[in-house]
Amino acid sequence: MGILETYGHGGDLLSAAQRFGVAQGDFLDYSANINPLGMPVSVTETLLASLSAVIRYPDPGHRSFRHALARRLGLPEEWLLPANGAAEAMALAILGLKPQTVGVVYPCFSEYEQLSKQFGAHVIGCYGKEENGFKPDMRELHRLFEQADLVFIGSPNNPTGILYEPDELVQIAQWATETNTWLIVDEAFLDFVATERQFTLATQLEQYPRVILMRSMTKMYAIPGLRLGYAIAHPDVIKQMREKQVSWSVNSLALLAGELCLQEHVYEEKTRALVAKERAFLSEIITHELGWKVWPAEANFLLLRSPKHLPAEQLQARLGKKRILIRSCAMYPGLTEHDVRIAVRSREENERLIAALREVAAEGSGHA
Amino acid sequence: MGILETYGHGGDLLSAAQRFGVAQGDFLDYSANINPLGMPVSVTETLLASLSAVIRYPDPGHRSFRHALARRLGLPEEWLLPANGAAEAMALAILGLKPQTVGVVYPCFSEYEQLSKQFGAHVIGCYGKEENGFKPDMRELHRLFEQADLVFIGSPNNPTGILYEPDELVQIAQWATETNTWLIVDEAFLDFVATERQFTLATQLEQYPRVILMRSMTKMYAIPGLRLGYAIAHPDVIKQMREKQVSWSVNSLALLAGELCLQEHVYEEKTRALVAKERAFLSEIITHELGWKVWPAEANFLLLRSPKHLPAEQLQARLGKKRILIRSCAMYPGLTEHDVRIAVRSREENERLIAALREVAAEGSGHA
Repeated sequence: MGILETYGHGGDLLSAAQRFGVAQGDFLDYSANINPLGMPVSVTETLLASLSAVIRYPDPGHRSFRHALARRLGLPEEWLLPANGAAEAMALAILGLKPQTVGVVYPCFSEYEQLSKQFGAHVIGCYGKEENGFKPDMRELHRLFEQADLVFIGSPNNPTGILYEPDELVQIAQWATETNTWLIVDEAFLDFVATERQFTLATQLEQYPRVILMRSMTKMYAIPGLRLGYAIAHPDVIKQMREKQVSWSVNSLALLAGELCLQEHVYEEKTRALVAKERAFLSEIITHELGWKVWPAEANFLLLRSPKHLPAEQLQARLGKKRILIRSCAMYPGLTEHDVRIAVRSREENERLIAALREVAAEGSGHA
Repeated sequence: MGILETYGHGGDLLSAAQRFGVAQGDFLDYSANINPLGMPVSVTETLLASLSAVIRYPDPGHRSFRHALARRLGLPEEWLLPANGAAEAMALAILGLKPQTVGVVYPCFSEYEQLSKQFGAHVIGCYGKEENGFKPDMRELHRLFEQADLVFIGSPNNPTGILYEPDELVQIAQWATETNTWLIVDEAFLDFVATERQFTLATQLEQYPRVILMRSMTKMYAIPGLRLGYAIAHPDVIKQMREKQVSWSVNSLALLAGELCLQEHVYEEKTRALVAKERAFLSEIITHELGWKVWPAEANFLLLRSPKHLPAEQLQARLGKKRILIRSCAMYPGLTEHDVRIAVRSREENERLIAALREVAAEGSGHA
C-alpha cells in the first residue's frame, strides 16, 4: 500500500480518510502538531466578521502585520519577512542565498532536505545520537559547517522535540560566522516550550548576520490551513529573501488573523501550561504502563518507539481504524521502523489515545 | 511623492489610504479588476460555515479541487496545477523551465518581467502597436520566439483588454513548437470575455506541448485576498512546475472556495452580461462626452488616454481625493503619462465614476 505520508508530512487527513474508510472530520489527529485549544476566539470572531476582506488583494508589503510583529518582538521591521508558512520562508532563504550544499541533522523536518533539493542544492547530513535525544555530536555538527553553505537546525527539533541550550546556540552561531556558512534555526515549535526555556538568538542577531530564524504561526494559533510564518534575519538577508517572494503569497485572512494572534498572550500561556501537563501525562503512561521508550521533549509532541511486535506502520494502521491518526516516523533518516510521533492534545483526547494504545498493545502482533 | 503603485500593481488600498487620507474601505476601487458582483453567495456561506477548516493543513496535493477543476474543464487532472494565484503558477513555470531569456509584448502585466528577473532570466520585448489596440506586429512577435526561451502573451491582455484571435493563437503556438520556445498564455481575464469569443488553446494542448495556459480564479469570483489560480499544460510540464511548488502554498479556504466557484455558471453568465453592458456604457460616455481616447477591449477593464492638461498621475490624485481609485499606466513600458486603466463595475458605481471624471475634466488643469 505504501506509506501513508505520501507528501512526506503528517496531517494528511484526505489520504488517511481514503485508507481507513473514515471521514476526514472524524479523525482525532495526533499526526499534526497543532494547538489542541483551536483558534483563539478573537481570530474566529474577526474572520467571521471580516470575510469580505478577501474581495481585495492582500497587501503585498504585509505592512500592518509586519508592523504588529515588530512591536511584539521588539525588533525593527526590516529584520522581519512574513511568509506563506515557515515553509515558504525556508524556500525563500534557499532561493535568495543560493547554497550549493545544505547540511542537516537527521532526524529532522523533511522540508529542509526537500526544499534544498527542489531548488538545486546538494544535501549532506550528520545523525543525532539516539542516547542524547537525537542531538548531534557537536564535532559532527561543526564538520557540517565546514562543508556546507547553509545548515538547518530545529530548536526544538521536529520530530524529537529537543532544544539546543543557549551556550550551544551561541557556539553554533559562531561557527556560522567563522566558516561563512548560513545558519537557519527553525523555531516553528518554540512557542510551545516553557517560557524560561525559550532559547533563541532573536535579540542577538546584530552579532550574527549569518543566522536566520524561522517562525511559524500556524501551530500555536491552530491556523495551518491559513498559512502564516515569518523569518527574522539581518535586513540584507531579508532583502535577498524578499526578492524571491511572489507577490501576494500571503493571503488577506492570514495577515488579518496574524495580527490578532500576536495579542493572544493569555491563550499562549494557557497553551503552554496545558502542553507541559499533558506531555508529562502521556509520557508517564506510555513509559511506565505500556513500557515503550519515550524520548524527553519540550514541544507539543513526543517521539516514541513501539515494541518489537508492533512496527510504526502497523500501529498507525490499527489506530487509524479506531479513527486516531498518528505519524509514522519510519521514513525519517536516523529513525527506525518502530518510531512514531504523537502530538500532545487535551486530557480527554489523550485519554482516548491512551485507551486505544492499550487496546492495540493488548491485541498483540498479527496483521493490521 | 513617487508613484502610487509602489508594488507595481493596482488594488493597493493601503498606499492609497495613506496618500489620500481616506480609509481603505471607503475607496471605490477601479484600480483592481475584480468582479463587481462580489463573491458568489455560495462561497460566502460555505466559508462562514467552514472556517474551522483552517485548523487543519491544506491538502498538499489539492486533490479535491483539482478533481473538480478537471471535471469542469473536461481535461485530465495531470494537465492541471492549482497555485497560490496565477502569479505563483507563472513563478513555477519560470523556476521549473529555467528560461534564460524571456520575451514579453509591451504593454503587459508587470509580473511577466518582474518574475522573470526575480528568478534570473533576461527579459526582451517588443511593443504593441497603439493603432492596433497595442497588439504586436506578428513579425515582431515571431522574432521574440526566435530569440527567447519563453514568451508571455496575455489574452485578453492586461492593461489593454485585447484578445488574440483563434488563427493568431494557433500561429503563435506553432511558432513555439518550431522554435522550441515555451509559450505562456495568460488567460487571467478570459472568464470576462463573451462566451463565443473565449478563444483558448485549452482543448488543443496535446498538439502543443510547449504551451502553458495560466488561469486566475480571483478576478471572476472576487476572491483576490484568498489567492487561487492554476496552470494547464502537458503533464511533463506540470510535473516540472510542481517540483518547484512549496508545500501547502494554496491555503485551505482557497481550495474550498475554488470548488464552489466552479459550479457558479449562472453567476458567471450574469457577470459577463453586466461587464459587456457596462463596458459599453463607460466607453461610450468617456469617448463621446468627455472626448477621451478609449481603446476597444473585451475584458472587465478599459484603457483610456487622459487629455493633455490632465496627466494620469494628476487624474489619479484628483479622483483619489474623491475616494475613487484608478490605475495610472504611466509606468507601463509602451504607454504614456496619460494612460490609465479603469475596471468595469456596476451601473451605480460607474455613474459615480463618470460624475467624478466630469468634475475633474471641468476643473481644468492646475495642481492636484
